Amino acid sequence: MEAIKNYISEHKERFISELIDLLKMPSVSADTAFTQDVLDTADAVKKALTEAGCDAVEICETDGYPIVYGEKIINSDLPTVLVYGHYDVQPADPINLWTSPPFEPVIKKTDKHPEGAIFARGACDDKGQMYMHVKAMEYMVKTNQLPCNVKFMIEGEEEVGSSNLAIFVANNKEKLANDIILISDTGMIANDVPSITTGLRGLSYVEVEVTGPNRDLHSGLYGGAVANPINILTKMIASLHDENNHITIPGFYDKVEELSKEERAEMAKAPFSLENYKDALDIDAVYGENGYTTNERNSIRPTLDVNGIWGGYTGEGAKTVIASKAFAKISMRLVPNQDWKEITELFKKHFESIAPEGAKVLVKPHHGGQGYVTPINTIGYQAASKAYETTFGKKPIPQRSGGSIPIVALFEKELNSKTILMGFGLDSDAIHSPNEHFGVWNYLKGIETIPYFYKYYTELFKK
Amino acid sequence: MEAIKNYISEHKERFISELIDLLKMPSVSADTAFTQDVLDTADAVKKALTEAGCDAVEICETDGYPIVYGEKIINSDLPTVLVYGHYDVQPADPINLWTSPPFEPVIKKTDKHPEGAIFARGACDDKGQMYMHVKAMEYMVKTNQLPCNVKFMIEGEEEVGSSNLAIFVANNKEKLANDIILISDTGMIANDVPSITTGLRGLSYVEVEVTGPNRDLHSGLYGGAVANPINILTKMIASLHDENNHITIPGFYDKVEELSKEERAEMAKAPFSLENYKDALDIDAVYGENGYTTNERNSIRPTLDVNGIWGGYTGEGAKTVIASKAFAKISMRLVPNQDWKEITELFKKHFESIAPEGAKVLVKPHHGGQGYVTPINTIGYQAASKAYETTFGKKPIPQRSGGSIPIVALFEKELNSKTILMGFGLDSDAIHSPNEHFGVWNYLKGIETIPYFYKYYTELFKK
Repeated sequence: MEAIKNYISEHKERFISELIDLLKMPSVSADTAFTQDVLDTADAVKKALTEAGCDAVEICETDGYPIVYGEKIINSDLPTVLVYGHYDVQPADPINLWTSPPFEPVIKKTDKHPEGAIFARGACDDKGQMYMHVKAMEYMVKTNQLPCNVKFMIEGEEEVGSSNLAIFVANNKEKLANDIILISDTGMIANDVPSITTGLRGLSYVEVEVTGPNRDLHSGLYGGAVANPINILTKMIASLHDENNHITIPGFYDKVEELSKEERAEMAKAPFSLENYKDALDIDAVYGENGYTTNERNSIRPTLDVNGIWGGYTGEGAKTVIASKAFAKISMRLVPNQDWKEITELFKKHFESIAPEGAKVLVKPHHGGQGYVTPINTIGYQAASKAYETTFGKKPIPQRSGGSIPIVALFEKELNSKTILMGFGLDSDAIHSPNEHFGVWNYLKGIETIPYFYKYYTELFKK
Repeated sequence: MEAIKNYISEHKERFISELIDLLKMPSVSADTAFTQDVLDTADAVKKALTEAGCDAVEICETDGYPIVYGEKIINSDLPTVLVYGHYDVQPADPINLWTSPPFEPVIKKTDKHPEGAIFARGACDDKGQMYMHVKAMEYMVKTNQLPCNVKFMIEGEEEVGSSNLAIFVANNKEKLANDIILISDTGMIANDVPSITTGLRGLSYVEVEVTGPNRDLHSGLYGGAVANPINILTKMIASLHDENNHITIPGFYDKVEELSKEERAEMAKAPFSLENYKDALDIDAVYGENGYTTNERNSIRPTLDVNGIWGGYTGEGAKTVIASKAFAKISMRLVPNQDWKEITELFKKHFESIAPEGAKVLVKPHHGGQGYVTPINTIGYQAASKAYETTFGKKPIPQRSGGSIPIVALFEKELNSKTILMGFGLDSDAIHSPNEHFGVWNYLKGIETIPYFYKYYTELFKK
């Protein structure tokens, strides 16, 4: 299968320009201002799947943004791989921090990407990584090397909770039936340290609103005499962590899976430099739950972070006002066994219970999803491991990620199949941040590696 | 001087329409978007002073917005009253909470204003109350009843700290020389309970910025492992009050004037209904420093309130991000003897000292001013008291206000004269809030009362 290398060098310019065209479409699912762009992106994905050789490509309507489906069934005796990805992207703001416009992709060299990286919102998460699979498919079909059946399911609401995908999956178990699910929406440790993600955190995302007086008030005439919703909100949020940075919500840790000494020792072997980590973020110290390392804090431990806060006068200059309302968006990352709906309820109950007299509190659940852990003794993992070993020249390290792909746990529940997370991005690729990018080398390496997964998986499946 | 009543009923329609024209000008000093409007408003004030009969009316340039000056010197043996007011207004946001556009004045009846009130930003604070003096001046000049000398000094930066006025006053002591300063920029208890403000709180206004990582981060990959600037900011702000709602900044209370049992008992006599207070604000309980009543909390006690907070994703939907920065605008109301510059320094020192490792904190002082207390045994207070008694039919109550007019303490220091605060607005007039208004009855009552102050003050002065 060396031929894949030649195929890539032959078509690499086209592979890059096709991705760049896709990245020019601002498919921000969180903001209704981009509705038409998201829909147009779905059409572009449909076209790409068809050109790559998929059959029965269709736009599947949902109550939200559509899911693009395509398949290539060559033999019912052969295994079926279901590829999942998403064509929607995170909002681009704060726009002013981008060094080039988020939806005008440009290739720039970086320390970590000497061969250049494509800078654009969605370059890595997930358009670039999703498109690797489309191009790998193209290669296997065009060269008659597709060893098994393939199904593609590319959605447009991953960044806003995949709620309609959940319904679609529940209603189309037959159509989506598969032996293994393949996703590239995670990262790896470094270009010379390949890794496979074996765990994901769950998520509970809520919005809170604190109301004090029924109107904005003059802070001189009323200051000190009424509950100021912003002060109250800061007090309430601050109380959600204790002095050891443990989360104080009653019952929050009840179901948290505690790793054994051995497992934690195993984790600690992954190459990691705290100094480089701090330098990259320009911070003088890390911060988090006492008793755990940085890599544990962002992978095997649950967290609570405020993602946004606003209230009162935020304009230029000074306004001596006591706001009527204050708001915050809060997300909790959960670990396996924590149920996101249960945690959301615990948060709601607790947050409402700590509201002081004189203030009203409203907790509005946004979305969420369960955590996930995949065993490494499956043929799926072994096939992925062999694929990386073939193209990177070294065995990948199993790694727990702090991120969430809420839908993965649901796949296992509804479709009864495991998911393999083959990520090719780097933590430094700034996904969800200004100047998101994806290394050209990583993009092409992904296209090169994926066909080997199909090969090895089919071989191991037949045994 | 009964004639004033007739003069008012004769010209009342014009008095109202002139004020409405002034209120149509969006003179928001805090927002540079309104620069030209603020300058135009200064010109309008100049025109009004001239038409009212002032001599030597001029626009006095400053490094900020100009000060409008005018005078009428009739006899150097007679006392001189310096009238101070401001033509700038607070920002109008949140605009969407206004029932009519903030700069399109309309007259609507309310429970407290059965004869109608003018709804517009600045209607009460301070265009309406400032213009009462212009119209009272017009009456006294046109009817040859001006009993003493008058000087007008109307500024355009009161809502942003009057820093340039302070310089102007220091450089023009001769020009501004006077025996008494008269200001209408406060309120009274009720239309049937006239009161004179004998105390003002000082102010220290700061903006704080907390920086965590050097860029926005994915809350899944980094959540729990780095200091989240929003969480840190909420922790820091929450820590500024203890469980008794005392402010925790070291040294903050050192110079606070403690009132005697007798003084507090005297204060408690002012008519006040906690139930009405709560109903008006639609709150189930008041909130504040333990050990003090509501009226004490908002007048004789210092406070710390967040006036605005922002950071992270505040748009539609959800974004799982850890922001690089979080911000807040914080103001402290101070009582007599607390020095605002000293308090600002104490705040800065303390706030920076409580920043945890992994976060950088910047404290940017905005502006401030000293508190003020005026004795009631002066001829100035007695003249004001007699004036209210004449037109309201009852003796006004001396009252400490929670608001701040930073410039008043400076007047006493630089010009060595006392200030009389004759306010005609009501707390319910929503100054600094959406739907600010000023009762037509209050406006005309002010115009009727002011000439009596001149009369009685001049008589008492001659004794």
